[in-house]
Order: sequence, then C-alpha cells, then structure tokens
Amino acid sequence: MLGKVTVSGARRATRTLWLLVLVSLSVSICVCRASSSSSLREEDSAMENIVTEKQAEESHRQDSADLLIFIMLLTLTILTIWLFKHRRFRFLHETGLAMIYGVLVGVVLRYGIHVPRDISNVTLSCNVNASPATLLINVSGKFYEYTLKGEISANEVDDVQDNEMLRKVTFDPEVFFNILLPPIIFHAGYSLKRRHFFRNMGSILAYAFLGTVISCFVIGLMMYGCVTLMKQVGQLDGDFFFTDCLFFGAIVSATDPVTVLAIFNELHVDVDLYALLFGESVLNDAVALVLSSSIVAYQPEGDNSHTFDVVAILKSFGVFLGVFSGSFALGVATGVVTALVTKFTKLRDFPLLETALFFLMSWSTFLLAEACGFTGVVAVLFCGITQAHYTFNNLSPESQDRTKQLFEVLNFLAENFIFSYMGLTLFTFQSHVFNPMFIVGAFLAVFIGRAANIYPLSFLLNLGRRNKIRSNFQHMMMFAGLRGAMTFALSIRDTATYARQMMFSTTLLVVFFTVWVCGGGTTQMLSCQRIRVGVDSDQDNPMSIGEGTERRSTKLESAYLFRIWYNFDHNYLKPILTHSGPPLTATLPLCCGPLARFLTSPQAFENECQLKDDDSDLILTDGDINLTYGDITVSTDASGAHTSGGLAFAGVTSDDLDRELTYGDHELVMRGTRLVLPMDDSEPPFTDPHLRLQM
Amino acid sequence: MLGKVTVSGARRATRTLWLLVLVSLSVSICVCRASSSSSLREEDSAMENIVTEKQAEESHRQDSADLLIFIMLLTLTILTIWLFKHRRFRFLHETGLAMIYGVLVGVVLRYGIHVPRDISNVTLSCNVNASPATLLINVSGKFYEYTLKGEISANEVDDVQDNEMLRKVTFDPEVFFNILLPPIIFHAGYSLKRRHFFRNMGSILAYAFLGTVISCFVIGLMMYGCVTLMKQVGQLDGDFFFTDCLFFGAIVSATDPVTVLAIFNELHVDVDLYALLFGESVLNDAVALVLSSSIVAYQPEGDNSHTFDVVAILKSFGVFLGVFSGSFALGVATGVVTALVTKFTKLRDFPLLETALFFLMSWSTFLLAEACGFTGVVAVLFCGITQAHYTFNNLSPESQDRTKQLFEVLNFLAENFIFSYMGLTLFTFQSHVFNPMFIVGAFLAVFIGRAANIYPLSFLLNLGRRNKIRSNFQHMMMFAGLRGAMTFALSIRDTATYARQMMFSTTLLVVFFTVWVCGGGTTQMLSCQRIRVGVDSDQDNPMSIGEGTERRSTKLESAYLFRIWYNFDHNYLKPILTHSGPPLTATLPLCCGPLARFLTSPQAFENECQLKDDDSDLILTDGDINLTYGDITVSTDASGAHTSGGLAFAGVTSDDLDRELTYGDHELVMRGTRLVLPMDDSEPPFTDPHLRLQM
Repeated sequence: MLGKVTVSGARRATRTLWLLVLVSLSVSICVCRASSSSSLREEDSAMENIVTEKQAEESHRQDSADLLIFIMLLTLTILTIWLFKHRRFRFLHETGLAMIYGVLVGVVLRYGIHVPRDISNVTLSCNVNASPATLLINVSGKFYEYTLKGEISANEVDDVQDNEMLRKVTFDPEVFFNILLPPIIFHAGYSLKRRHFFRNMGSILAYAFLGTVISCFVIGLMMYGCVTLMKQVGQLDGDFFFTDCLFFGAIVSATDPVTVLAIFNELHVDVDLYALLFGESVLNDAVALVLSSSIVAYQPEGDNSHTFDVVAILKSFGVFLGVFSGSFALGVATGVVTALVTKFTKLRDFPLLETALFFLMSWSTFLLAEACGFTGVVAVLFCGITQAHYTFNNLSPESQDRTKQLFEVLNFLAENFIFSYMGLTLFTFQSHVFNPMFIVGAFLAVFIGRAANIYPLSFLLNLGRRNKIRSNFQHMMMFAGLRGAMTFALSIRDTATYARQMMFSTTLLVVFFTVWVCGGGTTQMLSCQRIRVGVDSDQDNPMSIGEGTERRSTKLESAYLFRIWYNFDHNYLKPILTHSGPPLTATLPLCCGPLARFLTSPQAFENECQLKDDDSDLILTDGDINLTYGDITVSTDASGAHTSGGLAFAGVTSDDLDRELTYGDHELVMRGTRLVLPMDDSEPPFTDPHLRLQM
Repeated sequence: MLGKVTVSGARRATRTLWLLVLVSLSVSICVCRASSSSSLREEDSAMENIVTEKQAEESHRQDSADLLIFIMLLTLTILTIWLFKHRRFRFLHETGLAMIYGVLVGVVLRYGIHVPRDISNVTLSCNVNASPATLLINVSGKFYEYTLKGEISANEVDDVQDNEMLRKVTFDPEVFFNILLPPIIFHAGYSLKRRHFFRNMGSILAYAFLGTVISCFVIGLMMYGCVTLMKQVGQLDGDFFFTDCLFFGAIVSATDPVTVLAIFNELHVDVDLYALLFGESVLNDAVALVLSSSIVAYQPEGDNSHTFDVVAILKSFGVFLGVFSGSFALGVATGVVTALVTKFTKLRDFPLLETALFFLMSWSTFLLAEACGFTGVVAVLFCGITQAHYTFNNLSPESQDRTKQLFEVLNFLAENFIFSYMGLTLFTFQSHVFNPMFIVGAFLAVFIGRAANIYPLSFLLNLGRRNKIRSNFQHMMMFAGLRGAMTFALSIRDTATYARQMMFSTTLLVVFFTVWVCGGGTTQMLSCQRIRVGVDSDQDNPMSIGEGTERRSTKLESAYLFRIWYNFDHNYLKPILTHSGPPLTATLPLCCGPLARFLTSPQAFENECQLKDDDSDLILTDGDINLTYGDITVSTDASGAHTSGGLAFAGVTSDDLDRELTYGDHELVMRGTRLVLPMDDSEPPFTDPHLRLQM
C-alpha cells in the first residue's frame, strides 16, 4: 500500500514537475518579451526627453522581469533536485543541474528573443579630461545625474547598443561578493565539523596554504609558457602579462566544497578524507581570494614586465600576509564580540532578537572587513568558525536551530543561484574570448597544478603522519578538486581587458567540466578507489581503532600542534566567552579573583548546564554522548595511572584534547581543572588557587 | 539568588550595551572618515583618468562602509530593544527606538563629518537631445558607460557636488519596494489570525476600502484648500496640483500594523479590536498603495488642471480596480500553485528544499506582479494569506517552523531597517522642504481624515453588527492609526518635484509624531479607554460568551458573508489543494470520480493525519485543541437537533463556519460530508453520491 502510494506520488510528481517546467519557462520567456517591449516604451519616452515616474517604473519592471527569470530557474532546479533525490540519482549534483538550466535559459535569451536596437544609448563625444564617478549632464537646462558603470572596450560599444536585454540579465559582479558569497562561506565555517577538522589541522593547513600557492605558481608559469607560445603562433591578439597568468593561477586554484561534499555526506565517506577535502576547500577559497587580490594590488598600471620580479613577488606576498591576517583578526574579533554580547545580555530570552543580532553581527564582519580594505569573505569564514566555537554555546536552543536553518537556507539559495547564473553567462555574457589553445593549456595546467599540490604535499605529510594519507585518498583528493562559486566570482569580477575576458571564458569551461565530469563521477571514483562508504561520521576511522600506539600517536601529532592553544582556549577563552568551561575562579590566578568572579557566568558553576550549553550538538550525535560517558571512567583511570612522566602526561592531555575535539566539552569540563594541574578529586576545589601559588 | 543574578545580569547588560553603543558609533564614524578619504583617493585616481580595479574597489569599500552604518544601527536597536523588554518599558516601541538612533546617526553624518568638495563631479554641457537610460562617454578614445540615476533640480546641483557622502547613505527608493516591503507585507499576511479576521471580515473590508478612500479624499480636499490658501499668502514657491493633494491623501492614509499591534500582542488586548485594527492596517496598505499609484498613473504630464475632473476620477478608479484585482488574482494564483506543488510532490521529505521553494514562490509572486505592471506588495499580501490557508497544511512540520521563523526574522530586520532609515533621512535627505503652514494643515487633515474614516463607518457598521463596535473601541482605532513603513516608502519613492519634496518632509514628521506619541501612548490610551487587556486571544470576547442569541447572530453575520465561499472552500478547494478536508470522492459529483480519486491525497482518507496536517498550529494554542474536542459532541448534538428548518440550518452551518475559523479544520473534517448533505452516520459513506443524485 505504502509502496503504491509512493510510486503514484512519484508519477504525479513527475507530471506536476514537467507541467511546472513548461509553465515557468514560458513565463520567463513571455517575461523577456515584456521586458523587451518595455525597453521599447522606455526608449520612446526617452525620445520625449523627460524622465518621468513612468520611465522609472519601466526600468523597475524590467529589473523585476530579469530577477523573475532567476527565481524561475531556482524553482525548477529545486523541483528537479527533489526528483533526483527522490529517485536517488547521484550522477548529477544539484549544482550541475542549476548550471544546465542556466545554460538552457541562456540559449533562449540569446537566440530566442530579438530585442530591437536600443537607440536610447547616445554616444557623447565631448572632450572631458576625466571619467568621474558621478556625472551631471545638462540637457537643455535640466540636470540629469549619471553614475559610472565601468569602462567598455571600444569593440563592445556596438554590443552595448545592440543587446540591451542581454546586458540587463548580467549582474554587477560585486553582487556575488557582497550578497551571494558571504552566506556560502559563513555557512561553510559555521557548519565545519570541527572535530575532524582539528584532528587533521596540520595537513589541511598545508594543503590549503602551501598547496594553493604551489598550484597558483605552477599554473601561472605553465600559462605563461602557453601564452608566450601563442604569441609566437600569433594566436594571441591582445596583451597578456605574467601577472595575468599568476592571477589566473590564483583564481583556478580555489577548489569548491559544495558538490563533492554533498555526495560525501550522503554516502558517509571516510571521515578523515571528508575532513581533509572540506577543510582544504574552505580555507583554499580564502587563500586564493587573498592571493589573487594581492597579485592585482601589486600589478602596476599597464605593466609590460615579462620578467620574473622577485621583489614584486615578495611584496605581494607581504600584501597577502597582511590582508589574510587582518581579515582573520577581524573575523575572530567580531565573533568574540558577539559571544560576549550574547553571554552578558540575557538576549536568550528573546530568540528572535538573538537570531537577528547573530545575523547582523556576522554580516557586519563582512562589511567591516571590506570597509577596512581587508577581504570580507575570509573574515566571514573565520567569524563563522568563531561563532560556532563560542557564540553558539550562548544561544538559546531555539536560536541555535534558527541560526543554523537560516544560514542553511541562505547558503542553499545563494549556491544554486551562482551556479545557474554561471550557466546563464555562458551564452548571455557579451565578450567571450574562447581561445582553443589557451583552453587546452588551461585544462592541462589546472590538472598538473592540482597534482603538484596533492602528491608532493601528501608525501611530505606522510613523513610526519603516522595515520598515513593512503594513495587512494590522494587520488580521490586529486579527482575531487572541483572549481566552483569562488573561482567564478573571482573571474567575473573584472572582465575589462582582453586577458581577463579570455580568463573568464576559460574559467567557465573549467568549472563546467569539473562540476559535471568530476562531480558526476564522484561515486564511481569512490568505488573504483575502494574508499569505504557508510562510515558513521562520529566514529573513528579503522586506522585509529584498535591499534593503540597508532591512535595515541595520531593524537600526539595534533596535540603537539594545539596543546598550548587548546589549554588556553579551554581554561580561559571558553569560560570568558561562553557559559561553558570550568569557572574562571578555578583557572585564573588568585590575584584577579574579582575579575574572574565577574566574568564567570553563573551557569559555569552548575555542571548540569554544561550538557545543554556546550557545542556538543554541533559536532555530536546522541550516540556520542553515551560514548562520552563510556569514556569518562576509562580516561580518568588512565590519567590516574599516568599522572607522573612527561611523555605519558603529554599523551594523556593529548588524549583529553582529542576527546574534547571528538566529543565536545561537557566531559572535559568536569575534569577541566586537572588539565591545568593534575590532582586527585579528594581535595576541595576552592584550594586550587593556593595550590597553584605554592607551586 | 535568582533575583540577584538577574539584577547583576541586567547591570552587566547595561554596561556591555553602552560599551557597544560607544564602540559601534565610533566605528561608524571612523568608517565615514574612511569612506570620505576613500572618496578622496577615488577622485585622485579619477584625475589620473583611468578606471582601474582600484577605483571599483574604492567605491565598493564606500558602499560597505555605508551599509555598515545601518548594520550598526540595527545592532544597537536590537540591544536596546532587549534592554527595554528586559526592563518592561512600554512607553517606546522598538520602531520608535530605531528611528531615534537613526536621527542620532543622521545628525552625526550631517554635522559631524566634513567631506571635502568632490571635484570628481564634472558638469558636462553638451547639446544632447535626450536623457537616455544608458550613456556612453568617449573620453579621449576610451568609452565609459554611465547609467541614468535621475533628474536633479537645478538648485540641488551644488548639493550633489558638495555632500557626496550624504548622498551615498541615501538609498535608491526602489530598494524599499523590492527588498524591504515584501517580507513585511508577506509576514503580515502569513501570520494573519484568520479566525478573528474572518469573523470581522465585513467591518475590516469596510474600513480598509471605503475608509481609506474616504480619508484619502478628505485629506486630499483639505490639503488642496490648504495649498490654495498658501498660494494666496504667497507661502507656496512651486507647483502643487490637485492630483498631488490626492496623492498625499493616499499615502498618509495607510496605517501601519507594526507598532500598536506589538503592544496589543504583549497586553492581549480584546481580540475583536485586535482583529479590526490588524486587518484594517494590513489591507489598508494595499489599498493606499494601489490608490496612489492609480492617481499617479492618471496624472498627465505637467498637468495644470485645478479642476475636479469627474471623468479623471472615474478613470483612475478604474485603474484602481484593475490593478487591485489583478494583484489579488496573481497573489492567490501563485499561492495555489505552491499549494499544488507541495501537495503532489513529496518535497516534504526534504524540508530544506521545501522551505527554499516556499520562499522562492512567495518572492516570485512579487516579481511577477511587478513585471506584469500590477502591485507586487498587494500580490504578496494575498499570496501570504493563501499560503497560510492552503500551502501551510502541506508543509512538513519542520518547514512550517522554518518558514514561519524565516519570515519572522526577515520581517523584523526589514522593519527596523526602514524605521532607522526614516530617522536617518530626517537629516541626511538633501532637499527637505519644511513648510510650517503645510505641516499644520497636514496634521489637521490626517487627524480629521482618520476620524472621517472611523466614526461614520463604525456607525453604519453598528447598524448591521449585533456585536457592536463600542465607542471606546472606536476611539482606540482612531488613536491607533499610526503611519509607518508603507507611508514612508510611498513618499520617498519620488522626490523629484517641489510638491513631492514638501510631501516627503511632512510625511516624515507625521510618521515620527504618530509612532512616538500615539505609539508610545497606546498603553495609557488603553487604560483610559477601559479596554480590558489580558484576554486569552483564543477565547471569545465577553459579548459573545453566554448570550446565545448575540453569539449566534454574530456568526450569522459572518456566515451570510461567507457561507457559499466557505462551503466551496471546505468541500472543494481544501481537498484539492491540501491534504486536509474531506476526500473529494465524497464531495464531487460521481461523474468526475476518477479525477476526484486522482486529486484526493491518501492522507485525506486517514483522519489521524488531519490533526498534524491542518493549519491548527497557525491559529491555535494547545488549549484550543481540547476545547475543540469538548465542542465536537456538543455541536454534533446541536446539528442533529437542527437538521430541518432553513434558518436553523443556516444557524448550524454558521456555527460550523465559525468553529472552523475558530478551531481549524480537523474537527469539521470529521463531519465534512454532513455539511454538504445532512445525513446520520449510520449509512455507509460510499452511498453519498447516489443519495445526492437521487435528490
């Protein structure tokens, strides 16, 4: 009976779906018609030489029509995604779908609709000695205000005058950076599985920073070779500087978490591989973004230097460091401020206010960074991580859900919008430059660049790691290096020059290829690489189960990296910023007793709050909580046995660290003070400070 | 102990709060500094006569800085709101707060920061014979593209060149209509308490339509008198046509639900009063919007006719009807489509997709209406009501929460943004025209217009209503006619002419006065009007409790209005569009049996689903569900007693109607077939159609 229902449901669904498809496509087309006709009317009234409400109305109607196309696209995508999920198709991911629909509509717009030549573009040829941001034009006594939209290469001028309509559906690239990217990146940071992320921190940082820089330079150099070759052959009809090559290398080095990880999530692929890929691709975006912007910042006006200038490289490396650290600092700072506000005000009584505040603060991070000249996206990323690590504990349970769901929805919409827009631009973008040679070179370079990132680094890392990154993992990472939203946004940001246009077109192809081919082939690749799926992402992977020494050492590795930070975080930051963690009165030296009492929230004294307050539900399933309590007794025995002996002690703390990263705080908290100073529990807690002073 | 904690918490909160205030204000100021300096750099590079990435960067940085100011404003507002809620201050509502902060920042921007004259505004004086939407300027061989921003009156030109920065923080008015208003209005429709709304439908419609038109014309005529008087005195230095007066009347006739109703909610004011005010102010906005736009549409170019043209009035009335009904139809249509999609696809298995779809469809309503030349906001309003009435039943419980919360947050943010922006514009808006005489006249007119709306209509309605609208209710409604977001958005939409500027400035003052004085005085007014508070909004009001005849008749009143629609909705629409309601096989004639079987969802056959699926949680508290079951037996008896006799039967169905509007569907559903055709339950259901055919 139920089976029948489902089937019939599916059949109905398909009918409804395709009905919807037809309806909405026709709608979007008729909409385009409307818009084109509106542009006609617009031009008439323009000839009448008056700017009335009507004209504003028309242009507004035009904009609505354009936006409507995208809404329809997204709706279609969502319905098809549902159908795919319903039928368990995995060969094409939703983002790939979005792109396909985008391409379809792009074709319709490009060839289906003929917009009459828009005469309303008057080309003035006055002798102005500047291209100001704002322009006042004195038309027979009336002043009209114009704002600068950008430079147009002379060959585009005709296009501009021809396809008004196509240009209308082309967004200002800044939209991507100010509206669409932030929620995506923030969500990535906010939903980061910190447990496995921290355990593989070292490797992730290596891949993200070193790897991206390597692949940037490898690709840059190869493209430079390719370009010079093209010059020889005479294929290149425009300038293409070395810095452009580096820029290209930077933007195509940003791998995209979306597609692969969606599938990984579905299939429960090995958690370490998941952590490596996700962590890399998240940080990766940040690195590539800053890298490219620092390359641009270095690039002098009309620079013709083909020479490999070391000073310049160093300089832009300096810029890179400055911008990155600045953005990092800003992001963390706002996260900390939010944590403090949510801790010390009782906002949690009003979840709506709380959610709104959370949202605004997270967004302000972005704006603040941009306003200060740092990179907003990077700031937002680290803000997201901070929010998840600290603020999340202070939120009321309702706001915890709300914020998670809010950003989940925003992320979903933004992502699919970007990808469908990608598909659209393939046909609607005015000045594509498809250069076969360059494209082939680019694909080659991207491939080799990825290889030069993964394999050598994995080799080096495996020297350090006891829990090796096996070769099939490496192949998978190599294969899973998709390019996505960030690459696209970076490449569309500036398409003024010939070089940039060629880059943009090529990048588009790279993204399409990787998303469709690599993204689609993920499942096959996983099976042919014999990477086991169906792992419960909250258990340890087979390597570190059973083999005690192996396990211990893995933890040691991560512990060495983070022991200091971890202790500091657990004993001071968490208590100061959140309601969880041990009371500061126990961890701070006696001298700042009153301060400690002021900063410690009443909850910190009651242990039963911990379970609710810590961020366990961010990285735990209920299964874990039992696991945790299973562990407590064991580990306390262990630490009891190991209280003497440096290495053993380190081992223990690393145990603790790993357990915290693994199972959240609530269990560590109960033994938090022991971390600072090992002592058996018989002594009353209030003597801690004295003891510490005696030592 | 707990008390101590709370107090200390509050104290800390206050500290943190004011710290935050200082920090963020200084931030916003330094930001302005940054932006001004950036505009300096911008101009330098402009003099260098190249449009580089850097310049784009600068302007982008500028925009971020401006946005940041508003984010800070909102954050401050939220914190202060919390403090007020925490301390239970009621004399000032959050929106009032937002405005105050806006004013403060406006003052700072206006007088605190001195931006050097921006030379980058070059005034061209070429002989162009048009003011095209797009302009290509040929600066020494390079083409720059400019987009039209609007006309500027000659006296503003200096301002434009002076306060670059002030103009930067001034948004494009369309932002309000395309981004900020829709979520507000949609939320109003989506969260409408349909139970009391429908019970008082007649009165609400009367107030919203007739009342708004009346007040529009009263105000319009009075302002026309005032303007002519000003002409005599020579106070008026600019054109001010009769249509302008009517337009003014239309825009200040839109009352705002926000402020008063927030307080009403807190205090649990009498439900009927609540329903009247909320329903009126919601529909009100729609009416005023369409009214104003139809007046504008009628207004010919540079029309100097002071004559009261009947034909013109009729014409614009026709426009009004057309636009309103069109928007209504569109809104309902998209709502229905969403309902169908959510019913026939199994999207409910994926709440994220469901929520996204819901969001997109609701938004597309707006865009579709705008693209078709209707009024998007009105469409969105009715779309919201439809979504709540039908689609909501098909959503998975999780999506039901998600959508509600999502729109709640959006509504909150948009609202506060608008109000703080209002405060800001009081100082940052460039061309205010404060004319004392006009302002006094406007206040007088607004007051009298409101009176002319409420009192006569209430008198007329009381002739029909058995459940009278008492005089203290009337006074309260009179007092609670605040002006808010819609009025502001309408008045700022076009400030090109002298008349519009004067209107805008005056409207601003009206909004401030009503929000601060009337909004602040609500509690006092309630008490001095002896309107009882603390009513459980899900019980009936005292009039209709106990006095059986009274109660019955109240229902009759609403029943007469809606019996046909209600029966149709309950027997056909609900079953077709949602999972609730009686199976269509029972309600549709036999001939369309297969269709009925196809359309009826499996859930409709299982009664236990109903409780979950119907929209009870939109208009119910748990208390009610018990109440409902309490009623079932009673009412079935009643209907059993009344099955013969037209009037009595009518009485019964009106009972049913009222109970459905009151307690959701689930209980009616169980007796749905009886509504179509009274019969006792002993007969097997499959004989229904035959029976109907025999009759």
